[in-house]
Amino acid sequence: MTTRMRSEIAEQPAALRATLDALLPRAAEVGRLAGQTRRLLFIARGTSDNAAVYGRYLVEAHAGLLATPAAPSIATTYRRRLDLDGVLAVALSQSGRTEEIVETLAWARDCGARTVAITNGGEESPLAQVADLALCTLAGEEKAVPATKTYTTQLAALAVLGLGLGAEVEAADLLRVPDAVERLIAEPGDLDEIVEGLAGKPGVVVSGRGLVFSTALELALKLKEACYLHAMGLSYADLLHGPIAVVDEETPALVVAADRGPTLAGTVALAERVIGAGASAFAVGGGSALAEVSTAALNGPDLPEWVTPLALIVPGQLLTEALARRLGIDPDAPRGLNKVTQTD
Amino acid sequence: MTTRMRSEIAEQPAALRATLDALLPRAAEVGRLAGQTRRLLFIARGTSDNAAVYGRYLVEAHAGLLATPAAPSIATTYRRRLDLDGVLAVALSQSGRTEEIVETLAWARDCGARTVAITNGGEESPLAQVADLALCTLAGEEKAVPATKTYTTQLAALAVLGLGLGAEVEAADLLRVPDAVERLIAEPGDLDEIVEGLAGKPGVVVSGRGLVFSTALELALKLKEACYLHAMGLSYADLLHGPIAVVDEETPALVVAADRGPTLAGTVALAERVIGAGASAFAVGGGSALAEVSTAALNGPDLPEWVTPLALIVPGQLLTEALARRLGIDPDAPRGLNKVTQTD
Repeated sequence: MTTRMRSEIAEQPAALRATLDALLPRAAEVGRLAGQTRRLLFIARGTSDNAAVYGRYLVEAHAGLLATPAAPSIATTYRRRLDLDGVLAVALSQSGRTEEIVETLAWARDCGARTVAITNGGEESPLAQVADLALCTLAGEEKAVPATKTYTTQLAALAVLGLGLGAEVEAADLLRVPDAVERLIAEPGDLDEIVEGLAGKPGVVVSGRGLVFSTALELALKLKEACYLHAMGLSYADLLHGPIAVVDEETPALVVAADRGPTLAGTVALAERVIGAGASAFAVGGGSALAEVSTAALNGPDLPEWVTPLALIVPGQLLTEALARRLGIDPDAPRGLNKVTQTD
Repeated sequence: MTTRMRSEIAEQPAALRATLDALLPRAAEVGRLAGQTRRLLFIARGTSDNAAVYGRYLVEAHAGLLATPAAPSIATTYRRRLDLDGVLAVALSQSGRTEEIVETLAWARDCGARTVAITNGGEESPLAQVADLALCTLAGEEKAVPATKTYTTQLAALAVLGLGLGAEVEAADLLRVPDAVERLIAEPGDLDEIVEGLAGKPGVVVSGRGLVFSTALELALKLKEACYLHAMGLSYADLLHGPIAVVDEETPALVVAADRGPTLAGTVALAERVIGAGASAFAVGGGSALAEVSTAALNGPDLPEWVTPLALIVPGQLLTEALARRLGIDPDAPRGLNKVTQTD
């Protein structure tokens, strides 16, 4: 039986092409709205928050703009106004209907920020209605509870946002992503071996740094949601400040890296340390440098680091879907979760 | 045998009194340095980063200033300059010698920020030397690897920082903290029952929100470091966006709240949901409202919410120390960790 999650993973090349076609021409609009704003504020929860982590590193590392992940409780629970003059607030919600996110974007607007919505819910969604500018992704309807195509298309929208904000990168790199995703779906690497390596383990550490930290966080969330695995997503720097103590033969690590870029060397060193502690290290991307020191490896895309996160999560999605089935869980409908999460 | 960790937990009332005596008179200096800066940037890792989470919520909820947790890799790995004009950068390192943190604070200064160091390493430490202003905590030497008194005194320094930045709170509340910590050490609540409830469990979820989110993160880190427990620290809003799926009879939750304040009601609702999922919910603070719906409870301090985190971690420290011994681990020297962590 093919799960919906598996079908939706396969729909990502088309969803990414449609989204990039629609949004790339709008980068200049983002630039005009941003104007002289010099700070970003990202408002999101769950998978969307992992996408926001990509946005944050992209605009900091490549556009030189300081970006803050919002604490929505300041708006919705403490009901405190902040001075957001000169801030561009970017809210992400796949449905465009999560009340906490809609309310926090409205609060940011009332505090003086300019506002952008990134949503798959369309121009008529409550989130888009609150924003000065809506970047609508074209993922189509997503039925499985674990987000896949709505996540990667959010990353595409964030890449367009980064271009609009003057990121010093090549826009043409984005057009290579859909084909790279197709190749990873066809050839994910040592998927079966890693499924067996994780089955029955109580927990796993998922670690990456910089632009692919978003991928590590999102893979950890997927494994929690759909496999009930105690998966801890951490930057490798944070991992070494304490949590490395949990790594042992019963706690493997998934180490995530782009095939190139400034965080690859540190990730290779982390994999070596994990193996030195008697644990398995499974690579997600990182090219031959990481695969050679790891127990087994999922392939990553042959792309520049800045667009790598759009494709690198895909083998992780395939891993999650296969591991859930291996564990007897229906990945389309994990316990305790609904498709649209409402928090206050 | 008394562990060093247990002795250092008991030294906290004196360490807090000494630190508050030294730093409270310096709040005005912070205000003068901050001047017209309107944003904060916190630079930290590990336990210090959990302290920074307290600082972030304090200045946002009570001083109305947007605060950003820094991504140090932008400075140290991507080596990208950001525009930090109008930013007050606050770096925290217990030793004052973690190179990544020293380097990132120097980077912030070079990017135009004004700079504050919070450290137990003294005025001569590299971190203090880089900063415009150093708030030195007086915790004395800490020998156990898991930080206890260096953490709570960091929170005291952050409270002074908040006062200097105009937080609308009563400074006198701070002077009640040392006595409250003494009482919690003498009467922590259902410690033995919760130790037994966690022993042998593969993982635990630790959840709180707002000002005590810092406490949840720090307790989760302690349980990872010293008990090798897969402890996930999450705000309750993030928990409901996916990770709630991992909660079951084998995965209890520690639910953390102040005895009063706007996040208490949501935490009570979370405890009820956890119990409804067939899991145990152990309260950490939250007064009778939270204790009544929970499986067992550790006491919290009878203090205003804004100073609660300075004392609320203490029963969590006692829990960590007792659980480590119960599991046959020496909490003073967990595997894989040194007292000063160097990351790049």
